[in-house]
Amino acid sequence: MNLILFDPAETATPLPLTDPRAQHILDVLRRSVGETFDAGLINGPHGKGTLAAIDPLTLTLTFSWGSVPPPLDPLTLIIGLPRPQTARKILQEATALGVSALHFVLTDKGESNYARSTLWSSGEWRRHLVAGAEQAFDTRLPEVTHGRTLAEVITALPHNAARLALDNYEACDALSECHLLRDIPKPPIPVVLALGSERGWAPRDRDQLRAGGFTLVHLGPRVLRVETACIAALALVKARLGSMQEPACRRF
Amino acid sequence: MNLILFDPAETATPLPLTDPRAQHILDVLRRSVGETFDAGLINGPHGKGTLAAIDPLTLTLTFSWGSVPPPLDPLTLIIGLPRPQTARKILQEATALGVSALHFVLTDKGESNYARSTLWSSGEWRRHLVAGAEQAFDTRLPEVTHGRTLAEVITALPHNAARLALDNYEACDALSECHLLRDIPKPPIPVVLALGSERGWAPRDRDQLRAGGFTLVHLGPRVLRVETACIAALALVKARLGSMQEPACRRF
Repeated sequence: MNLILFDPAETATPLPLTDPRAQHILDVLRRSVGETFDAGLINGPHGKGTLAAIDPLTLTLTFSWGSVPPPLDPLTLIIGLPRPQTARKILQEATALGVSALHFVLTDKGESNYARSTLWSSGEWRRHLVAGAEQAFDTRLPEVTHGRTLAEVITALPHNAARLALDNYEACDALSECHLLRDIPKPPIPVVLALGSERGWAPRDRDQLRAGGFTLVHLGPRVLRVETACIAALALVKARLGSMQEPACRRF
Repeated sequence: MNLILFDPAETATPLPLTDPRAQHILDVLRRSVGETFDAGLINGPHGKGTLAAIDPLTLTLTFSWGSVPPPLDPLTLIIGLPRPQTARKILQEATALGVSALHFVLTDKGESNYARSTLWSSGEWRRHLVAGAEQAFDTRLPEVTHGRTLAEVITALPHNAARLALDNYEACDALSECHLLRDIPKPPIPVVLALGSERGWAPRDRDQLRAGGFTLVHLGPRVLRVETACIAALALVKARLGSMQEPACRRF
């Protein structure tokens, strides 16, 4: 946790000691009364929190807010609904990497059971976004949907987006060499990157992707886990979008 | 597990049913006697295994071996010894991504306790390499060392290697834009990529890296976990080395 994020409503009341953020402030950051820590308002400004008082059951915190971080990358990820353990990693890592939107979709080979996981029904999914943003020293969370069909999500994509789908079987173009990304204008148009579930795309999924204007691309001869492929592909796309040029130290 | 790997000595004797590979052949691949599966000899050829007999305590397997996969990428990773849980992920993911060598080094800010983990003393570390190679459909494992100092490892690097160290604090150049990688000759010279431990590099580490010919580079404004930074940086370097151009389907 490089930054501790709060929902706006949470900043008006004391923080229960049972909240993991309270433990982090006391046990990891070892802050005493009067000391400060890096804080942020979710989808709002960066700032400083001050530990104003330690009570038997709560911490009293005060805040001073600064500037709002820049927008997220114009990058949408579509992912065939994976098993919950994989979805947790993707929620956190894709947020840390700065995508604007994450759509977990039903595909032909996907397990529709996964959509009924408590990850989605309990709201747990949002915790992984917050953890990813806190890691990345950002306050912004991506938009997330889950359980819609691939076709529904494709229909709702921005019209001008460059559309790429990773495929180990039928892709001819390497993502790393792909003209769609090489010739991307500045400022960049939105990019949509689609990944199948663990079992990959079914023929009907590929038909929908192609009809939706997607180019099938690959990541080379080595077969990667979905979450690894996500990170590798996002890194390659972000490099082409020019969103890895400014160093992190300017933000601290 | 896209491929099941065996040490050469293991192919001469029946496989105990308690071995996870036996369970995988029966329960995940659901093979019956006479059926085949994708197999490989560690650091040797790809091939096919045949389930010849199911006995009360063992599986009898026979093998036919084919071609040896191409060499790994000329890519060495140096990593400040991280906590064991992070090291496990890096061992597996860096192997899946095809690095030739992985050196887990002692740095000034590293926890020397981590070097005494059972991950290293029990030989468990090698299991994660095998899992990574099986995932990637490759038979080759990288060379791994752990517990040497950063200075010792730098001294033993190939003389002609391009040397890059990730740094969130003092790097001026973006890895994605870095001239050292843009101007890499074909066939490529070896590339060495160094990452600090969770707490980053200390001033003395940076001095050693600079004296050893390393250029400090960054991955952009977002602060990533060590294992995420590893995957993202390896993807960018591999793209520049040209090692993501051939699709995986040619290997199946």
